Amino acid sequence: MTAAAALIGVDWGSTHLRAYLIDEDGSVLERSEWAACGAPALAIGEHAGALARAIAPWRGLELPILACGMVGARNGWREVPYRSAPADAASLRAGLLQAQPGVWLVPGVLDATDPDRVEVMRGEETQILGAREPDERAEEALAICPGTHSKWARLRRGSIVGLRTCVTGDLYAALRERWPGVEPASPAWAAFDRGVARGAREPLASALFSARADYATRRLQPEELPDYLSGLLIGAEIAACRDLAGAEAPLLIGAPALAARYGRAMRAQGLAEPSQRDAAACVARGLMRIWREKGER
Amino acid sequence: MTAAAALIGVDWGSTHLRAYLIDEDGSVLERSEWAACGAPALAIGEHAGALARAIAPWRGLELPILACGMVGARNGWREVPYRSAPADAASLRAGLLQAQPGVWLVPGVLDATDPDRVEVMRGEETQILGAREPDERAEEALAICPGTHSKWARLRRGSIVGLRTCVTGDLYAALRERWPGVEPASPAWAAFDRGVARGAREPLASALFSARADYATRRLQPEELPDYLSGLLIGAEIAACRDLAGAEAPLLIGAPALAARYGRAMRAQGLAEPSQRDAAACVARGLMRIWREKGER
Repeated sequence: MTAAAALIGVDWGSTHLRAYLIDEDGSVLERSEWAACGAPALAIGEHAGALARAIAPWRGLELPILACGMVGARNGWREVPYRSAPADAASLRAGLLQAQPGVWLVPGVLDATDPDRVEVMRGEETQILGAREPDERAEEALAICPGTHSKWARLRRGSIVGLRTCVTGDLYAALRERWPGVEPASPAWAAFDRGVARGAREPLASALFSARADYATRRLQPEELPDYLSGLLIGAEIAACRDLAGAEAPLLIGAPALAARYGRAMRAQGLAEPSQRDAAACVARGLMRIWREKGER
Repeated sequence: MTAAAALIGVDWGSTHLRAYLIDEDGSVLERSEWAACGAPALAIGEHAGALARAIAPWRGLELPILACGMVGARNGWREVPYRSAPADAASLRAGLLQAQPGVWLVPGVLDATDPDRVEVMRGEETQILGAREPDERAEEALAICPGTHSKWARLRRGSIVGLRTCVTGDLYAALRERWPGVEPASPAWAAFDRGVARGAREPLASALFSARADYATRRLQPEELPDYLSGLLIGAEIAACRDLAGAEAPLLIGAPALAARYGRAMRAQGLAEPSQRDAAACVARGLMRIWREKGER
């Protein structure tokens, strides 16, 4: 079963460590997931031990280990300098940092094309480079990684050339904690759609208050509030990033439930509906593509 | 000392109960403030007792008691129906609700001029109606009440005719809790100014990420982060509300430290610098103006 194993890949973010045994084609053979093990949450000196525990089942295989994500941030295991956009798999391979013998960390990507508007990512660059199927040959593509800090990335001939981030998931979590509302049994789509329309057409600072005003005046029910807020924020994200969209279907890297929300919102805003990709599959394929690059190392 | 006392006024919001002994001219003679006594935090039946404790020193005076704020919200003492904009002191007086003998609650204001964009306030309407000096005769005015939910209100001949709310303070508190950064000893004005410029020119959803990107790339120091975020949010508020501003100096109802921030930001954005008013003085004068109205009651 593990005969074709070629690489141990690690997606090590702010909250989880996800380890994958990956074959020559970049497919996942086995996986393990460790919560409450975020790279910035560990103390200095704890990262090697946490990694050893996570990949213990594969210890005898003597495979190279490649890790991406916040593990390379200033408050992670070792800080890996960003690679500047445009950045492709070869550029990321050239920027790998060896954290200990046999373990390399993937650099993040910095877009400082406009020095007054610097953008960064750590982890999503690997997902994005693994998002396309081997037979996809389009020169231009848009990849979207929704989440705490949603990333929109423009790709040209396999390079990340432009980048924008919206703090969509961060705001959602922060305001759900502070504001009224009741989780519905199933998504309140009508409220979500109203939120998208409002969030896309009005500055977010005032659009957000509509959730409170409509609740206070009973235009919005408690169980509609969460999805209205979700729609407001996704609508605002689409409005803030729509200049990065082209005519082609974007690649949306995330869970099907989130892809359904973005698909619905993007369609309503006149954009092409995204094609959903599984984040774990993208990370594994992206890590293998970076590892396989014959770069300047 | 209390010979001229004419009214007991209460500003009863989400977190505090502030009680004032007010003279015929609307000036504050004595005051008491009770924290951890927010109107929505009390259980049904607890409001009368809390009020009695707060105004106990003035019990023998047998004055009417007038309360504004969240005490009249759906989760307050008694829900007082909103009065529709345009709303002046007479309209608020006509909408008073008697919570118990001798105690009246001031209604909030609803602006549903655009039914797709309903705005509400509870408490600020009283501050705003008390913000102008007796000798101010300008037909047009703009009042700003910065805070958790910042209110911008357009006044015409003493009536509130237009209203917009930004969730500025709410977002600041939510993100300061979740994001890195260190409180500086004194305001980091250069970082604040950069934040204002960025927040005013870019959609907030993506502008907010600049705080994280600039921190990750060391363009922003930990002790600059709070004021950069403050600037981003105030800049976004000004951009979202600037169509309500005229050539006249706005009335800014709030503490001097906050007025300094808004003044600096508004000047940088080419707006007239606001004239600062004390919130307690405005509430007391506003309550007296409402009480004095000879309305349809």
